[in-house]
Amino acid sequence: MGAIIVADVGGTQMRVAALPRDGIQPIKHQIAPTQAPKGSPFERFVALINAVWPDEAVEAISVATAGPLDPKTGTILSAPNIPEWINFPLGERLAEHFGVPVYVGNDANLALLGEWRYGAGQGHHDLIYITISTGIGGGVISGDQLLLGHRGLAAELGHITVLPGGPLCPCGQRGHLEAISSGPAIARFVNEKLAEGEASILEPGPGLSARDVAKAARRGDPLAKAAYTRAGEFLGQAMADFLHIFNPSIVIFGGGVSRSGSLIFDPLKDALYKQVMDPGYVKNLILTTTKLGDDAGLIGAQVQAQIRLSSL
Amino acid sequence: MGAIIVADVGGTQMRVAALPRDGIQPIKHQIAPTQAPKGSPFERFVALINAVWPDEAVEAISVATAGPLDPKTGTILSAPNIPEWINFPLGERLAEHFGVPVYVGNDANLALLGEWRYGAGQGHHDLIYITISTGIGGGVISGDQLLLGHRGLAAELGHITVLPGGPLCPCGQRGHLEAISSGPAIARFVNEKLAEGEASILEPGPGLSARDVAKAARRGDPLAKAAYTRAGEFLGQAMADFLHIFNPSIVIFGGGVSRSGSLIFDPLKDALYKQVMDPGYVKNLILTTTKLGDDAGLIGAQVQAQIRLSSL
Repeated sequence: MGAIIVADVGGTQMRVAALPRDGIQPIKHQIAPTQAPKGSPFERFVALINAVWPDEAVEAISVATAGPLDPKTGTILSAPNIPEWINFPLGERLAEHFGVPVYVGNDANLALLGEWRYGAGQGHHDLIYITISTGIGGGVISGDQLLLGHRGLAAELGHITVLPGGPLCPCGQRGHLEAISSGPAIARFVNEKLAEGEASILEPGPGLSARDVAKAARRGDPLAKAAYTRAGEFLGQAMADFLHIFNPSIVIFGGGVSRSGSLIFDPLKDALYKQVMDPGYVKNLILTTTKLGDDAGLIGAQVQAQIRLSSL
Repeated sequence: MGAIIVADVGGTQMRVAALPRDGIQPIKHQIAPTQAPKGSPFERFVALINAVWPDEAVEAISVATAGPLDPKTGTILSAPNIPEWINFPLGERLAEHFGVPVYVGNDANLALLGEWRYGAGQGHHDLIYITISTGIGGGVISGDQLLLGHRGLAAELGHITVLPGGPLCPCGQRGHLEAISSGPAIARFVNEKLAEGEASILEPGPGLSARDVAKAARRGDPLAKAAYTRAGEFLGQAMADFLHIFNPSIVIFGGGVSRSGSLIFDPLKDALYKQVMDPGYVKNLILTTTKLGDDAGLIGAQVQAQIRLSSL
């Protein structure tokens, strides 16, 4: 039985593990910062892979990374906080260096693959994953198939217009879900209302985070509660859209904002159940949170490798 | 070589044809009104199938119908203008009667299957079909697989919220794309503006149609042009969402409103190209109209049968 090298490359750290072909218990596991004074991110990544390289024959290297990429070629179009990786042929470079097949996938898509086979989504065939943190990302499995699109750019569920002419999104457009319901958008809303003179126990400032707002909301601060209610209601509106579009049997939520519990999920569910057009969409629908936590990317990379190897 | 019986059951008429297993040239073809003074729609449907039953062995009956249905069981949940067909087990009843496999699909989904294999979408793997007429319907193929969802209710592309709190949709929700950009929604907008006293060559009234509005727009009527511009702009906003969600290589438009040409497509394209978040989504993207016309449902039913029979 061979092994798979899996990796999760984020803007802050890189995690690499060697796994048995059919399991998720690491043989070896290494973590390193993505940026460091010496050497390039690619050189550090290669060193990490060498550090976990097992005695077993390696059948593939499978990588989860943030940002847009072409899953067919393994080329990274851009990666948050890795300025060196613009149109970077990561898959090709790794395949040349190590002489094994290399698969590269978007981290949200792979987190969903991981949850589907080993986490909260086991046994389902139609799933939506939505991660709400600094940004809002998504993944979709429909009929047991990951939604990728023509150039691998599908499932950008944070980038649909929920309020025409609304707040500016980091992508440059206005009124996207990410511009209203992400962590920074929740904090920005509070800062704007504080600047308008609304009363709150919170202090305005660029350091204000969605976590600060959640703490104030739990202490009963009306502005903080209103900020989460607004974010949750727009999430509920978008979820109704996604149910009409995908008709899933389960929706899995991940990311820091999803850990704020009823603050975000109560208004989300209220809006969703009001705005769904037919009870058939919510009959037996499961709304839940991720099970795999920080390991979702690595485990998803393993599932990606299993799928790609079994289709050879 | 056997034959397939294909059918397209609409609220106004039923069309049934016998086709060779691997082709789309009808052996026999019959049309009848769906509603008539004598007999039930099901009895008339059975009689039509008998009338085209060929000498060749029939391998399957494949039916396209409007309205929500369960493609796994062939049960019609409801069908526009056929009040007898509520939770009606059409697939089961036909299979009992004729003793062959029966496949039932949503007409928009099947129109897309038809366009994909025999029409405007040939050679593509990731397609969106959107039909704009009395309502707005949709179909999606992603990675060569039709998007159905858990209960067959997916791809309701007319029922996403494009304007929170906006006009009432026939589904009961507010601000859906169908409530702003369908034919009746275009006429309603004009009627509302006429009631507010806006100048126009059009006369208000319940008989005013999107086609009347299109004629007036071509004669330079500012209100009529504004009605199409508004409908097209919201379609463009929704199309940007759909590109971010599905990343297709082609979008195929059908339905009466799509025949109004630049009146609807100029504002649609302007809004779409402005609101897409990355040029990768529109690079080499094809926007086009249907090729199969009125035969799309029958031809799509044939493709549905081919797919289902080949997966046995």
